[in-house]
Amino acid sequence: MKKVAFIGLGVMGYPMAGHLLTAGYQVCVYNRSTEKAQKWQQEFGGDMALTPALAAKDCDIVFCCVGNDDDVRDVVYGDNGILAGLSEGGILVDHSTASAELARELAQAAKAQGKHFLDAPVSGGQAGAENGVLTIMLGGEQAIYDQIKPVIAAYAQFSQLMGEVGSGQLAKMVNQICIAGLVQGLSEGIAFAEKAGLDGNKLIETIAKGAAGSWQMENRSKTMFAGEYDFGFAVDWMRKDLGIAFAEADKNGANLPVTKIVDGYYQQVQENGGNRWDTSSLISLLKK
Amino acid sequence: MKKVAFIGLGVMGYPMAGHLLTAGYQVCVYNRSTEKAQKWQQEFGGDMALTPALAAKDCDIVFCCVGNDDDVRDVVYGDNGILAGLSEGGILVDHSTASAELARELAQAAKAQGKHFLDAPVSGGQAGAENGVLTIMLGGEQAIYDQIKPVIAAYAQFSQLMGEVGSGQLAKMVNQICIAGLVQGLSEGIAFAEKAGLDGNKLIETIAKGAAGSWQMENRSKTMFAGEYDFGFAVDWMRKDLGIAFAEADKNGANLPVTKIVDGYYQQVQENGGNRWDTSSLISLLKK
Repeated sequence: MKKVAFIGLGVMGYPMAGHLLTAGYQVCVYNRSTEKAQKWQQEFGGDMALTPALAAKDCDIVFCCVGNDDDVRDVVYGDNGILAGLSEGGILVDHSTASAELARELAQAAKAQGKHFLDAPVSGGQAGAENGVLTIMLGGEQAIYDQIKPVIAAYAQFSQLMGEVGSGQLAKMVNQICIAGLVQGLSEGIAFAEKAGLDGNKLIETIAKGAAGSWQMENRSKTMFAGEYDFGFAVDWMRKDLGIAFAEADKNGANLPVTKIVDGYYQQVQENGGNRWDTSSLISLLKK
Repeated sequence: MKKVAFIGLGVMGYPMAGHLLTAGYQVCVYNRSTEKAQKWQQEFGGDMALTPALAAKDCDIVFCCVGNDDDVRDVVYGDNGILAGLSEGGILVDHSTASAELARELAQAAKAQGKHFLDAPVSGGQAGAENGVLTIMLGGEQAIYDQIKPVIAAYAQFSQLMGEVGSGQLAKMVNQICIAGLVQGLSEGIAFAEKAGLDGNKLIETIAKGAAGSWQMENRSKTMFAGEYDFGFAVDWMRKDLGIAFAEADKNGANLPVTKIVDGYYQQVQENGGNRWDTSSLISLLKK
């Protein structure tokens, strides 16, 4: 039986680590705040460690799902970091949404020690993590992906190796760029419908299957009409992800004019106290 | 058997009128250029008339599908217009995408003569018209809608009475507003993916089912990667429709900041000679 570690028990990592245990793996967790790790252990019954290095000890695979680039570096490097504990031949899988540059840096650091790295950001949100139906986009070597694919199936409905290391992060950036413009268009459409006095249910039933249709329209329009923004991926996290995309675009020359405008709207939502509202809260700026 | 007329044999009206005939209705058509009406008659075998009034004579229902507000007025009013030919109790159904104001005006003009009016813009594009699977959003009285519903089923997969007269046009405006932001977001995402060197097929396979997914992503991303924009609804028509939405927004107070920016991009596409390219050609501005 494979021994694995999971570093970072946030809204995503907590249920993901649980799914690994349920799937029959031996799981040791680490979380910066020990209380969360203890709570996890009480709920699922796995092991916990007081440092990432201790959690990674004797593991075949170490998963990590934390915040930004620096948060990842904090748990990977140093005497207490994952790489210090992971054995030669071990695999580090980073589920954090971070820069492609960090992925390349970590892959190099791992390789220098005879270890392996895959960047593996996820989509599907908190509900996807809890229900074990995430989509995972990975970057790295095929042979390494083949080894971890059956393991991440514990919480992934679909996973795909996008290409070389960093490609998983680049695919996630595309995902977030597409969402930004899409949700703004949907917000303007719904706000217009409200001003026009249209029946929201009839409207969405009519247009959702056609050329204006989207996952966001199917899953968020009802709550957008209602002005409820408590359904998942938070504005703070979206702005972090868009910031990563903008930094990459500065390097690859991609032009993101509307995505940048929408990021500015998200900043306004934050200024209005909506840091933890979900991404559909763009419509709050149009409801006045 | 119901006798109906169809006024305007453009890329939409031509096959729609054909579906009515195939469904067993007695159909008389009118088109500004007579050649098109003759071609239609040769293909389908129905009747043709030399004025809208003559086409509308003795009809239970007259359908019309032309260009902008003034084009509709041209075929409805005057001695040769639809209302001059339509009998008392007859129904005029306007499939053109036009203003809600025009719909109210025509409803009043029809009512003054003891006739009925429904605004009934369609979505689903040329392919939807040809395959008889359009979506139709209507405004007007329920009892009148109930009379025409089985008839438009000849070319509609789904139809819905949105509310009072003009509501069909308002719903169509929402549809176009949603598409504008959505396609721009998708364009920025795909252009970024190209600059990042990602595999387009793997990318779309991975993200199309999730929160970034849309009809546009499913149906247009492959041709957007390829730089092909010959798949339906033209930029010229989109700008006409957005202009109608902007005029309505000026009245109802809706704020459409990104839709207006995207309309400006469509203007750039026109200036680049892309008047007849489809709406996904927004990406052409980002491919440099």
